[in-house]
Amino acid sequence: MLVTLDGNLRKPLYMQIRDQIRGRILSGGLKSGDRLEPSRELAHQLGVHRTTVGNAYADLESEGLIQGTVGRGTFVTPLAETMRAPRKAPGRPTQDIFWESFFPKEARDDSLGRLMASSAEEGVISFAAAHGSEELTSPDLIRRAADAVLRREGGRLVQYGSTAGYHPLKAYLQIRLRRDGIPVELDEILVTHGCQQSLDLLRRALVSPGDSVVCENPTYTGLWNVFESPSVRLLGVPVTPEGMDLDALESLLEQNRVKLIFSSPSFQNPTGFTMPLAVRQRLLEIARRFQIPIVEDDVYGALRCRGRQIPPLKALDPAGLVIYLNSFSKVGFPGLRVGWIVASRPVIERLQWAKQRADLHTNVLGQAVVQELGARGLLDKWIRKTCRVYAHKQDVLRCALARHFPPEVRVFYPEGGMSVWVELPAFMDAEELLVKARERRMTFAPARYFYFQNPRHNALRLCYTALPDEKIEKGAAILGDLLRAEMRRARKGRPGALAGASVALV
Amino acid sequence: MLVTLDGNLRKPLYMQIRDQIRGRILSGGLKSGDRLEPSRELAHQLGVHRTTVGNAYADLESEGLIQGTVGRGTFVTPLAETMRAPRKAPGRPTQDIFWESFFPKEARDDSLGRLMASSAEEGVISFAAAHGSEELTSPDLIRRAADAVLRREGGRLVQYGSTAGYHPLKAYLQIRLRRDGIPVELDEILVTHGCQQSLDLLRRALVSPGDSVVCENPTYTGLWNVFESPSVRLLGVPVTPEGMDLDALESLLEQNRVKLIFSSPSFQNPTGFTMPLAVRQRLLEIARRFQIPIVEDDVYGALRCRGRQIPPLKALDPAGLVIYLNSFSKVGFPGLRVGWIVASRPVIERLQWAKQRADLHTNVLGQAVVQELGARGLLDKWIRKTCRVYAHKQDVLRCALARHFPPEVRVFYPEGGMSVWVELPAFMDAEELLVKARERRMTFAPARYFYFQNPRHNALRLCYTALPDEKIEKGAAILGDLLRAEMRRARKGRPGALAGASVALV
Repeated sequence: MLVTLDGNLRKPLYMQIRDQIRGRILSGGLKSGDRLEPSRELAHQLGVHRTTVGNAYADLESEGLIQGTVGRGTFVTPLAETMRAPRKAPGRPTQDIFWESFFPKEARDDSLGRLMASSAEEGVISFAAAHGSEELTSPDLIRRAADAVLRREGGRLVQYGSTAGYHPLKAYLQIRLRRDGIPVELDEILVTHGCQQSLDLLRRALVSPGDSVVCENPTYTGLWNVFESPSVRLLGVPVTPEGMDLDALESLLEQNRVKLIFSSPSFQNPTGFTMPLAVRQRLLEIARRFQIPIVEDDVYGALRCRGRQIPPLKALDPAGLVIYLNSFSKVGFPGLRVGWIVASRPVIERLQWAKQRADLHTNVLGQAVVQELGARGLLDKWIRKTCRVYAHKQDVLRCALARHFPPEVRVFYPEGGMSVWVELPAFMDAEELLVKARERRMTFAPARYFYFQNPRHNALRLCYTALPDEKIEKGAAILGDLLRAEMRRARKGRPGALAGASVALV
Repeated sequence: MLVTLDGNLRKPLYMQIRDQIRGRILSGGLKSGDRLEPSRELAHQLGVHRTTVGNAYADLESEGLIQGTVGRGTFVTPLAETMRAPRKAPGRPTQDIFWESFFPKEARDDSLGRLMASSAEEGVISFAAAHGSEELTSPDLIRRAADAVLRREGGRLVQYGSTAGYHPLKAYLQIRLRRDGIPVELDEILVTHGCQQSLDLLRRALVSPGDSVVCENPTYTGLWNVFESPSVRLLGVPVTPEGMDLDALESLLEQNRVKLIFSSPSFQNPTGFTMPLAVRQRLLEIARRFQIPIVEDDVYGALRCRGRQIPPLKALDPAGLVIYLNSFSKVGFPGLRVGWIVASRPVIERLQWAKQRADLHTNVLGQAVVQELGARGLLDKWIRKTCRVYAHKQDVLRCALARHFPPEVRVFYPEGGMSVWVELPAFMDAEELLVKARERRMTFAPARYFYFQNPRHNALRLCYTALPDEKIEKGAAILGDLLRAEMRRARKGRPGALAGASVALV
C-alpha cells in the first residue's frame, strides 16, 4: 500500500496514514472488497508503532469506509463506493473536510419528516400534520396585541428577559392554572419555547445515562426523538381507549427501575384517546407507590369540544408528583413558541438551569403577545371559537367517513383534540395505502410512525383541523375509494384476509 | 435495624428497604456517622437476597445519604443532616417524593448567576453583564416593524414555521453575509434561538461522548456550560492580546485527538481581544492541516467602533472548515432570541435535525421583526448608531479610569465590543474586591468566572455599554477608591506584594 509519512509535517502520523488511505478509497484507487494490509505489517513497513496504524484504521472503520473481520482481515466496504465523488455545488471549492467522520452515529428514521414535507406540497389534501386552522387566525388580533404590549413595555421586550419567563405571563398562567384546579406558585412555573423544548429540558435535568423512562406506545414522535439514545431505555406501555394500560404499567414498574412516566391523558397523540377520572386516579396511586414522577403532556387538553372536562393529573396531585407540560401551540399560536412547565420547586430550579444552558430564556415578545391576549380575555374567546370550529370539522369528517368508508374500518372519534384514529382490517398496511393516497394527492399519518417498538401497521391518524370542509369531504372520498378497492381485492384474491378484520386495538 | 417488608405490597422489596432507611435518616432516627448493618446480615435477617439490600444501599449512596468504606462498613453521611427537614412552603402539602435522588449529579458553580442577580438589584451600578444600552432602544421602531410584518404576513407568523428558519430572514442574512465576504447559499444557514442554542445544537450534532474540544480560556461561560460533562473533555488555550495562543493550540492538537476548536476572534468575551488578520490565517492553516473544524463566534464582530474591520474566519475559508455563529443579541435585540449558524450543507442538515428535537423551530414573529428592520435598512442604521454610542461610552470610561485608577492597574481598551479587560497587580484578588464593591453598590465580573481551568484571580471585566455616562463615572470612582485603598494597604503591610504588579496577561 502506498503510504508515505512526513515526520516534518506537524500532523500526527496516524492522521497522515488515515487521510492517505481515505483519499485512495474515495478516489477509487482502493475499491469495495479490497483488503488492506494488516496493521502489524503496515506498521513494520512504515517504521511506526502498531497502535499508530491501529488508530488510523479505527477512524476509517468508524467512518464506515473499511471493516475488519476476525481471522480474515480488513476490507474496503461497499459503503465507500457510495461516498465517492460527493455532490458539489457548481463553482464552489472542494471541501477538504470529511464531515461524515465528524458526526456521531445515529439511527434515524425520518419517515414522518418526509411525510410532512410531501404533505405541504401545493394541492395536496393533507390529513398528516396536527396543525390548526388558518381560517381561524385573526392577524388583526395579534397585531393589536403586539402593538399594545410594545406601547406599554417599550424596549424591554427586545432586551434580555428572565430565564424563568416573562413575569406578567407567569402571573397570567397562574390564574389560568388555578382555574383548572392546579394551585401553583409563581416559582413553580417555567416558560419554555414550547413542549418539545420542555421535553428536552426534562431529559437534561432529570435523566442520566442508564436510566429507563416509560412512554405510551404509540406516542408523539418528538418525545422519543428526545430520549432515544444508546444510554436511555424507552419502555413502552400500550394505549387503550381509556389511556395508558395500567396493568402493563404496573408489571413494567415491578420489573424495572424507572425514572419517569410520560403520559398524555387527554386526547392522546396519535390515538386521541382520553383517560377517564378513575383511571387517572389509579395512575397517580401507582406512581405514588413506586415514587416515580409522571410527566403529563396536556397540549390538547383545552381543545375539548364535547363532554365533560376531566381534571388534569396535576389537579389530582397535591403531593407534587406530576410534572405538567402545556403550550399555546395547539390552541392557535405555534409560531410564537411559548410553552410552560409546572412542577415542584426543586424540579423547576433544575429545569431553569437547563434552560439557561439551552437558550438563556424564551423570546419575550411572543410571551408578551400571548399574555396580552390572555389578560384581555381574547385567548379564552379564541379557544372557545376554535373548539366550536373543530367540533364542526369533526362532524363534517364523521359524515364523510360514514358515507365513504367500508364498514370493516373502525374510526374512533374523540371528544376533542385534532385527529381521529382509524383502525383498518388486520391484513391492510397503512403505509402501502399511503403510497396510493399520495398518487391521488392525499396524505395521512400511518400509525407505524408513532410506535417506538412493536409497530402496528393497520391503523392511521387523520388530522382534520387544518382543512376546509370541502377538502375534508374530498379527502375522505379519496381514502374511502382506496379502502373499498382494497376490500374488493381482499375478497377476491385473499379469502382468508378478512378474518382479522375486526381485531380491537388493545 | 428496623425494616419490615410487606410481600403483598406491589412495591419492589429493595424500594421498601431503601425508603424505610431513608425515612429513618431524614427523621433523625439514624444520625451522621451511624453504621448500617452489613448488607449480607440485613439480607439474612429479612430473608431476602443480598442483591436486594445491595440495590437499596446503592440508591441511598447515590442520593448521598450513606457511604461505604472498604473494610469498615457503611455509614450515614454528614450530608444527611443537612437534608433533614426540607423547606416547606406554609400550607402546602408535604412532598412525598425525594427529588434530590432524581437529579443527575452535576458540579455547578453559579457564581456568575448570583453576580448577575445581585447586579440587577435597584440602585446597583453594574459593570457585570454584557447588556446593551436601553437608552438606544427605540420601541416605536420595533412596534412599526411588528405592525408591518403582521399586516403583510398575517396569521402565518403565528403558525408553525420552518425548522431551517423564516425564509425572508434567511434571504436577508444571505445578503448581509455576502457583504461581509461570506458567500453562502440559503441551505447553508440555520436560524436558531440565539448563540447559546447554536452552541447547544453543535454539541448534539457533532460531539460524542469521549470527544475533546478546544476552547479559549478564559471564555464565555455559556460555552462550557454546554460542553462540560463527564463525557466531553474541554482543553483550554490561553488568550493573548492577539487572540488564541496558536503555539499552545498546535501543541494541544499534536497531543490530543480534537473534535472542534472554538474561537471568538473579534472582541473576545471576556478579554475583548481581537485576532489580527495574519493570526487568523495561521489559525485556519493549522485547522486545515489537522482537519479540525473551527467554530467561530462572531456575536461582537459588528460592534467595531474604531480601526479597520478584519474579515471573519469564515470569510477566509473557502474550504468550508469554519462553522460560523452570530446573533442579533449584542447589536440590540436579545429578547427576540434570533441567531444563526452558517456551515457546510452536511453540517447544517445535522444541526437542523438537532434543532427539530430541541424546539421544532425558532419563533417566527421575532424573525420577521428583525428581517423587516433589516430590509428597511433600519438595522444597519441602528448598528451604526450603537457603535457611535458605545465608542462614546468607552471614552467616558477611559477618562474616568485614567483619573481614578492607580497606575499599577492595566486596562485593555478594545476597538469595539462591550467591555474592557482590567489587569490588577498580582497580589490582588478580583473576587475579594467584588465583595467590597458590592458593599458600595457597584459590581463587575471577576476574571475567575470565565476560566474553566487555571483561573486567573487578578483580572476583571468591566462592561460599560448598559450604563448612562454618569454611572460609568461614578462606578469608576468607586472602583478606583477601592483599588487605591488596596494599594495603600499593600505598600504598608505587604512590602513584597507589589513585586508582581506589572505581570503581563499572557
